[in-house]
Amino acid sequence: MLEAMNRREITEQIVAARLAKGLTWQELADAIKRPVVWTTSALLGQQPIPAELGEILAGLLGLDRSVVPVLAAVPMRGQQSRVPADPTIYRLHEAVSVYGPAIKELIHEQFGDGIMSAINFSVDIDKKPHPGGDRVVITLDGKFLPYEWNSAD
Amino acid sequence: MLEAMNRREITEQIVAARLAKGLTWQELADAIKRPVVWTTSALLGQQPIPAELGEILAGLLGLDRSVVPVLAAVPMRGQQSRVPADPTIYRLHEAVSVYGPAIKELIHEQFGDGIMSAINFSVDIDKKPHPGGDRVVITLDGKFLPYEWNSAD
Amino acid sequence: MLEAMNRREITEQIVAARLAKGLTWQELADAIKRPVVWTTSALLGQQPIPAELGEILAGLLGLDRSVVPVLAAVPMRGQQSRVPADPTIYRLHEAVSVYGPAIKELIHEQFGDGIMSAINFSVDIDKKPHPGGDRVVITLDGKFLPYEWNSAD
Amino acid sequence: MLEAMNRREITEQIVAARLAKGLTWQELADAIKRPVVWTTSALLGQQPIPAELGEILAGLLGLDRSVVPVLAAVPMRGQQSRVPADPTIYRLHEAVSVYGPAIKELIHEQFGDGIMSAINFSVDIDKKPHPGGDRVVITLDGKFLPYEWNSAD
Amino acid sequence: MLEAMNRREITEQIVAARLAKGLTWQELADAIKRPVVWTTSALLGQQPIPAELGEILAGLLGLDRSVVPVLAAVPMRGQQSRVPADPTIYRLHEAVSVYGPAIKELIHEQFGDGIMSAINFSVDIDKKPHPGGDRVVITLDGKFLPYEWNSAD
Amino acid sequence: MLEAMNRREITEQIVAARLAKGLTWQELADAIKRPVVWTTSALLGQQPIPAELGEILAGLLGLDRSVVPVLAAVPMRGQQSRVPADPTIYRLHEAVSVYGPAIKELIHEQFGDGIMSAINFSVDIDKKPHPGGDRVVITLDGKFLPYEWNSAD
Amino acid sequence: MLEAMNRREITEQIVAARLAKGLTWQELADAIKRPVVWTTSALLGQQPIPAELGEILAGLLGLDRSVVPVLAAVPMRGQQSRVPADPTIYRLHEAVSVYGPAIKELIHEQFGDGIMSAINFSVDIDKKPHPGGDRVVITLDGKFLPYEWNSAD
Amino acid sequence: MLEAMNRREITEQIVAARLAKGLTWQELADAIKRPVVWTTSALLGQQPIPAELGEILAGLLGLDRSVVPVLAAVPMRGQQSRVPADPTIYRLHEAVSVYGPAIKELIHEQFGDGIMSAINFSVDIDKKPHPGGDRVVITLDGKFLPYEWNSAD
Amino acid sequence: MLEAMNRREITEQIVAARLAKGLTWQELADAIKRPVVWTTSALLGQQPIPAELGEILAGLLGLDRSVVPVLAAVPMRGQQSRVPADPTIYRLHEAVSVYGPAIKELIHEQFGDGIMSAINFSVDIDKKPHPGGDRVVITLDGKFLPYEWNSAD
Amino acid sequence: MLEAMNRREITEQIVAARLAKGLTWQELADAIKRPVVWTTSALLGQQPIPAELGEILAGLLGLDRSVVPVLAAVPMRGQQSRVPADPTIYRLHEAVSVYGPAIKELIHEQFGDGIMSAINFSVDIDKKPHPGGDRVVITLDGKFLPYEWNSAD
Repeated sequence: MLEAMNRREITEQIVAARLAKGLTWQELADAIKRPVVWTTSALLGQQPIPAELGEILAGLLGLDRSVVPVLAAVPMRGQQSRVPADPTIYRLHEAVSVYGPAIKELIHEQFGDGIMSAINFSVDIDKKPHPGGDRVVITLDGKFLPYEWNSAD
Repeated sequence: MLEAMNRREITEQIVAARLAKGLTWQELADAIKRPVVWTTSALLGQQPIPAELGEILAGLLGLDRSVVPVLAAVPMRGQQSRVPADPTIYRLHEAVSVYGPAIKELIHEQFGDGIMSAINFSVDIDKKPHPGGDRVVITLDGKFLPYEWNSAD
Repeated sequence: MLEAMNRREITEQIVAARLAKGLTWQELADAIKRPVVWTTSALLGQQPIPAELGEILAGLLGLDRSVVPVLAAVPMRGQQSRVPADPTIYRLHEAVSVYGPAIKELIHEQFGDGIMSAINFSVDIDKKPHPGGDRVVITLDGKFLPYEWNSAD
Repeated sequence: MLEAMNRREITEQIVAARLAKGLTWQELADAIKRPVVWTTSALLGQQPIPAELGEILAGLLGLDRSVVPVLAAVPMRGQQSRVPADPTIYRLHEAVSVYGPAIKELIHEQFGDGIMSAINFSVDIDKKPHPGGDRVVITLDGKFLPYEWNSAD
Repeated sequence: MLEAMNRREITEQIVAARLAKGLTWQELADAIKRPVVWTTSALLGQQPIPAELGEILAGLLGLDRSVVPVLAAVPMRGQQSRVPADPTIYRLHEAVSVYGPAIKELIHEQFGDGIMSAINFSVDIDKKPHPGGDRVVITLDGKFLPYEWNSAD
Repeated sequence: MLEAMNRREITEQIVAARLAKGLTWQELADAIKRPVVWTTSALLGQQPIPAELGEILAGLLGLDRSVVPVLAAVPMRGQQSRVPADPTIYRLHEAVSVYGPAIKELIHEQFGDGIMSAINFSVDIDKKPHPGGDRVVITLDGKFLPYEWNSAD
Repeated sequence: MLEAMNRREITEQIVAARLAKGLTWQELADAIKRPVVWTTSALLGQQPIPAELGEILAGLLGLDRSVVPVLAAVPMRGQQSRVPADPTIYRLHEAVSVYGPAIKELIHEQFGDGIMSAINFSVDIDKKPHPGGDRVVITLDGKFLPYEWNSAD
Repeated sequence: MLEAMNRREITEQIVAARLAKGLTWQELADAIKRPVVWTTSALLGQQPIPAELGEILAGLLGLDRSVVPVLAAVPMRGQQSRVPADPTIYRLHEAVSVYGPAIKELIHEQFGDGIMSAINFSVDIDKKPHPGGDRVVITLDGKFLPYEWNSAD
Repeated sequence: MLEAMNRREITEQIVAARLAKGLTWQELADAIKRPVVWTTSALLGQQPIPAELGEILAGLLGLDRSVVPVLAAVPMRGQQSRVPADPTIYRLHEAVSVYGPAIKELIHEQFGDGIMSAINFSVDIDKKPHPGGDRVVITLDGKFLPYEWNSAD
Repeated sequence: MLEAMNRREITEQIVAARLAKGLTWQELADAIKRPVVWTTSALLGQQPIPAELGEILAGLLGLDRSVVPVLAAVPMRGQQSRVPADPTIYRLHEAVSVYGPAIKELIHEQFGDGIMSAINFSVDIDKKPHPGGDRVVITLDGKFLPYEWNSAD
């Protein structure tokens, strides 16, 4: 019987291999010509990785080729703990906790009833200078989806 | 004995009064010359509102002037339910759940060990056109705070 | 200072008034010429109700006209308890708990990586005969949204 | 002493083997002539699989025959996390959170006091065209069970 | 605008009125000629009470007749806290916690794959003598529902 | 150092061995001349099993004799998840959620202040015919324990 | 319609009245000739109070006599928050968290399989001198209840 | 690299070894001349065990001497699940849930503002006869700690 | 019947009255000659306030004298939500989450097995200058309590 | 494929190796010339450890050099259980639960709207004498961060 690794186990191997090889996320993204946020999130188990890209990444990281079809499958996304304790991640949840209701009101005021899609969506991260110190600028960019009562027929 | 409203009760009155008066959040922000996300979040109970601005807002919304010092006090911030069920707000938490670990890795790769501040921080929301449909673009802009082991002496 | 009801309080009044007046949900839906599932969910506080429809419904239910702008505002959606104890609602969550992972796999197999939208979405409920007893047939009908890494520029 | 795999471990093996062999869920369902939603949910650990079908599936997936009696036993059903973070599954819970109380009211209005069974029940999933884009149509079809106060004697 | 009580408020009034009037649950059940467990659970807010019975009960308990249509509506069932701290109720949950998996196995062994319905269901409670002291005998009596993959067509 | 299995691991082995050997719970109960609910719950890790019975069961199931003293020790009872998602077990919790407060009231009305013991207690399960379909009849039979304020001296 | 207070509201009144009248719990216990721990727990809503004692207590505390039958009914016992944050109460839970498994093992070693009843049970509290400072000595005294598989017939 | 067991793994080995060797907790306590509740709680992972006692216990239980320094370190105390489902342990939490607020009031009435320490603390367990059956008497004995606002300078 | 406010309601009145009167916490502390952290925490409902100080504070804040005995009673301490969302309070929990295990190890290394008391305890807060910006210095100062197995006899 | 340990596994090895080698945390801190609280928290998995220091520590503890790059990466910080049961750590959370709101008020009174940073932050722990017994003095020292609405442009 085969003894395949599941996606979570492969992610753990990727995290360790990247450190052991001394590769940056940017270098891995460049190798497959994809945006760095997408690449990092994919290697952390949140996106399916097309087989031809999986081959390249497995090669760079020294992983067995049997991981390629598992990387290519759509994963179970999201974090087990909805609001993790890690301070760097927690600040993002805090921002949503404090500003979420205001953002909701303004989406409704500017666009009408609906949401910002988290599926037709991208994230960008930038380092920008400021007299008071460098700033992390994170752009969440999602298609507006209006509440529409449609059906197939 | 006085019968003052607490901040939560004042927020409920603001929400109702705004609808009854037919005012937009933008109009309220313009009246006090402050950014609209800040103004909305302040009126929803998340920021202290300086007394001179509180006077203007109470006047526009028809609230009793006794609310002004309560609006000026620093509130208990954040939502009671950490991950609310409302779909418009939930999508923001989902984005953090799916992309949070990648953002963490890239903050560390680009800035070093630290966080994006949610205190020295602003949020902007924009409506941008796209061939596939209008997009909601939310910019989280926080100062990078490096982990530093400092003390007062 | 005004003493407006919030949306939750209005919903409680609607629930009580409907029973006191002996109106069915179908009659209320017919009065505003909207689908009955949408109408019921709107009157239970889950959809904004356009002012002209709100006027009709307030009239039928004997509610004060001051509720109309509150009904017209986009509400905080969703239930406070994510998985309620009520047996009729619980069965829906149970179906998702038991069949959710299979539905996920088949959405991916038939459509690719993405989701069924719950925003561009409708629900229909039907009573259908069957030799073993009448059946409740609930149709969830949502637009397929493929995971797409788009941005405004 | 025997070292048998439990159902959860077998499910993990099935998930990995299917990807390694490049089989679709539909092909597996066709091989045993069962509906594809049932087959997928059964292979994901939610249904007992009769031994003669288990033999066929074990053969196709290259699993040891010792799994057959375990697959044939009634499993512990349902997901450990009642409301999972995965966006594709979450949308189903969101639909129930937003529309559940309305569905409850309409089941009562159309059928009387009772529930839609999740046991005498089937799920179907369809891809339907629409000018605004393909739609996922999920049909939940369960026997109506009226609240009846019966006893054996 | 009407000021109707909701079902929870009516239940509180029933509980207080019964004590003030010195009525037993058995006397209330006898007055409407229904089983005492059903009657008690209905008066505690768990069952719809047909209007003609609601009239009788409202009369006995001295409640306003406006409660009758609310009592006749199907309520939100179940307890807010899934496993309450009250020792008398907790023992029932403990019995299910300790013996539930065994009951599951034996339902499957004796009946096949399926459940004991909690809808086509009754509960009886008896006081039985025993040399070691009186015993509470609670009978849960529900129709066996086999897992069946049926659909309306 | 010894490498003994703990009770949870032994339970997993029992579950797998029973299926592999094709034994019913009834056959195992008959082999040790004990009630079938007690035997099943004991083999699922909820009761201590006297050594002489443990010997017989280990023999039938092909387990190593080193499990006998572990089976004879009083286990940690109860399920880790207080209200499991499995539909067959969930219905038992639902029945307690819906009827628990009524049962509490009637225990107090018929017996006075106290509880039904879950310790001096037995469970029986029966299959009974009914024109509407076979019924699962579960009898919970516990000694009434009155609240008594006693002390050793 | 009557406007009776429920048990929780009466408890709040008792707590406030005791402070306003400057009565100790011991004085209230002496007035009804009952142990002080029982009396305090009863006045805090955890025990039914026989009507003749309720009359005395209501008189001392200046409560309306309509509370007497509510005090005499068996209450919903236990605290809403299973492990409260209050430091004085938390230490009791901490003691159970740290020593509970050891107490369980020793009950089994000294008495066999069973529990210490929390129903046939009393609590005493004493102030005892010690060279290192006064000690709080709390005695939990409950009847041993062996696990017995009995039934009414 | 060394492959040491952590405290949790050592506890599992102790539990299994004690049963395999047929030793009572009392015999283990006698061997090291310590109170039996302390010894049992220490062997269950809740107290550091001085190295000379750890040597004796490791010898009796047949454990490798490498466990001695781990047993001597201060452990992470307390149970993972704050209120476990096991009936014998649950009764202790129930007693605190029902009587905790009364104990708090009486500690304050008899001692003033403060707590019973759970650190300068001991537990004793006794078997006492009673006409109604043997009783488990558990004595919690902790130093009274008054709330004092002290500081080092 | 008296209509006393409970401690929580009094706290809400204090919070509102302080803002309406424009008093600082420091001024309130100076008026009763107590440390400002203690005074603030007492007025926020966490400490009993001796009657003579309660009289002064009630006078300053314009509260009814009936609050004095309630302020003088030992309150239920602690926050309902164990880890609040408010960013200023959350940072304190984050510090304990990140550094708690290290503090535990060093308390054990420097003092032995035991805890820092949170009862014989004070908190001080200071504003200290630093080239990189003012610093908040919070000093937690608690008596070391060694684990001691003592009893009253 | 490589079989690297992740950070959690390395932490477990460090904890065991330190005890086996008989090293104090202070000795480890001295070896790398870093503050002892920082060093302990880093070795417990809460800080990245620069490679040159990781080499020294791995040498002292007898760990494989492959751990060095993993120790140098920024870890996931914080404890899985937000409020752990361990009494030594719990007291820190209790202090924040009881005094947190007062600290918040005083930070706002003395500094304005903002927080004490937990990132530009240090912790110190001291043993100080006191007539009533040695005291643990923990100093939390963080930069004040005012709420500022800044953005990169």
